[in-house]
Amino acid sequence: MDDLSPNQDYLWMMRAVELARRGVGTTSPNPPVGAVIVRDGFILGEGHHEIAGELHAERRAIDNARWKGNEQWLKGSTIYVTLEPCSSYGRTPPCTEAIIEAGISRVVYGAVDPDERHRGRADEILRAHGIEVEHGVCGEVCEILVRPWAWSVKHRRPWVLAKVATTMDGRMTRRDDRWLSSPKALRNAHQLRAESDAILVGGGTVRMDDPALTIRTPLQVPSPRKKQPYRIVLTRDRNSIPADCQLLTDKYADRTIILEQVSDLKVMLEELYSRYGIVNLLLECGGQLLRHFLEEGLVNEWVQDIAPILGGGPAPMVPGDYLKRECRFREEEILACEPDIILRGILE
Amino acid sequence: MDDLSPNQDYLWMMRAVELARRGVGTTSPNPPVGAVIVRDGFILGEGHHEIAGELHAERRAIDNARWKGNEQWLKGSTIYVTLEPCSSYGRTPPCTEAIIEAGISRVVYGAVDPDERHRGRADEILRAHGIEVEHGVCGEVCEILVRPWAWSVKHRRPWVLAKVATTMDGRMTRRDDRWLSSPKALRNAHQLRAESDAILVGGGTVRMDDPALTIRTPLQVPSPRKKQPYRIVLTRDRNSIPADCQLLTDKYADRTIILEQVSDLKVMLEELYSRYGIVNLLLECGGQLLRHFLEEGLVNEWVQDIAPILGGGPAPMVPGDYLKRECRFREEEILACEPDIILRGILE
Repeated sequence: MDDLSPNQDYLWMMRAVELARRGVGTTSPNPPVGAVIVRDGFILGEGHHEIAGELHAERRAIDNARWKGNEQWLKGSTIYVTLEPCSSYGRTPPCTEAIIEAGISRVVYGAVDPDERHRGRADEILRAHGIEVEHGVCGEVCEILVRPWAWSVKHRRPWVLAKVATTMDGRMTRRDDRWLSSPKALRNAHQLRAESDAILVGGGTVRMDDPALTIRTPLQVPSPRKKQPYRIVLTRDRNSIPADCQLLTDKYADRTIILEQVSDLKVMLEELYSRYGIVNLLLECGGQLLRHFLEEGLVNEWVQDIAPILGGGPAPMVPGDYLKRECRFREEEILACEPDIILRGILE
Repeated sequence: MDDLSPNQDYLWMMRAVELARRGVGTTSPNPPVGAVIVRDGFILGEGHHEIAGELHAERRAIDNARWKGNEQWLKGSTIYVTLEPCSSYGRTPPCTEAIIEAGISRVVYGAVDPDERHRGRADEILRAHGIEVEHGVCGEVCEILVRPWAWSVKHRRPWVLAKVATTMDGRMTRRDDRWLSSPKALRNAHQLRAESDAILVGGGTVRMDDPALTIRTPLQVPSPRKKQPYRIVLTRDRNSIPADCQLLTDKYADRTIILEQVSDLKVMLEELYSRYGIVNLLLECGGQLLRHFLEEGLVNEWVQDIAPILGGGPAPMVPGDYLKRECRFREEEILACEPDIILRGILE
């Protein structure tokens, strides 16, 4: 290869990442994974994991290659996968087996398996069959992609993303009833919902705003392939939730979960994971409940939509006393959603 | 000129802007202005207005051309000036005269004179002498450069820039005594001081923090050409300011102004303008005093340093009730002062 040419592995892996992203929000409790099979600069087949219980990305890509009539070229090809291929029997047989059977000659993957019991196992198995293995290509991007899943596997509870919209003086409302967020920022908020397994609010939010918590992006609406995320309401008293609220009466009412008298948020999160397979939890609650999540260190990721307004309304982001815990925000992205600015990053 | 070549007028004007910027913070009550004289793609002379009472930018540039032995080439040259040349007698004779005398053939200026009595007068006078005149080149940049001055000319009070440092939850302090701002953000804060004629704080800030309010950037330190900005303290009772505080005891003590019992902030601003010639006023006060300035609509420009911290200390930016006035922030600049983000813009 010419020294001046861009790194081919990098480019193909980014295609696999692109495919994997399509699965964000639909694969839980599995991770989103994408795969591309390439030979001599051409894509033989590609695919991504869509829904738990269905084929993994590697098998989707191999099937796709066969469907395109490219089976004959698989020998000598390279498969790019965003995550280390699974090597153990789950709901489906291991992908290492599929790769070996297909005759693929080289495997390049991005993120290593976060489960220490499996990590590196794929390399061993594949190499034992004479297959060349490389990993860490676009490693960071691939790791971010499976970060919520890796977290949930390790901690047995969801990755929690808190999303707030504030004025520049830290208020969550305006003095009148107008929206705080710009149309672009609202689209981004709906994208976050589409990438979540569940959206959590407090009873107060339901009583005050009667939100639908549905996905209203043109790209991703609830469908047989993407269910409406669970809508979880935390309340002291179930009867305080109006019986005619949208969450209890709209066509997704079966996706609403009301949790009463939750005394331990961490235990609640563990239950949401074990019982409903929730990996990506989106917090859209008000300041009171947010405080509890923040002070108990239960928020992993933070998305703050800052509206270009100084002099917000009565609801401060942190009502009353200051937070008992200081978190460090490690910024990963600044989005210009004119005229809003969205900061997205990790809380440490 | 080749159609594909960059616009020469634009490029030379940007050089004039660069020169003008050197005067920001030293020219008050005059505006910062820069000028470049060009012929056949070469700079004959250039200069900027430095201190009120001294030569204007146009005369500095002409002098510079003479000093360089370029006088013979002035005929047929173009002068680029960031602001419409003055046409009336002030502390110095009008620049239109100097341009005519120097034999310059073409005048390109950026911003028009904001004073309606003078606006466009330069064009008339110069054209009457056969000089080609154009304006509006880099007009927006040039207007921003003289915006505080234009404001003060019109409203007879300073342009007020409020600078705050906050956490992401709108607090002005951390729970411990550590700095909120990153070293890069602090440098930016000192640059703001260097560009100001005065820095205003409340008595509470002096009692709590005992600040020096001096300029500590390596580039611009107080010098014979750049005085220490006035340090203005607003207090109910002069005796509540500790006699041994830095503002009253350091070598710039003569640049400290203590104002007692100020009942009308607007009237105070008018006095600061008329008595001390303060055009650029930097607010570095705490939330209580800031509230008054904001609610009375006296803040023109807003610089917010957002530190990547969630869970700030006891001092909220807006203490107590929410602000009585909603201001719209029109963003003009986002500065990445890793890990801080600085938002700078206009309040409307």
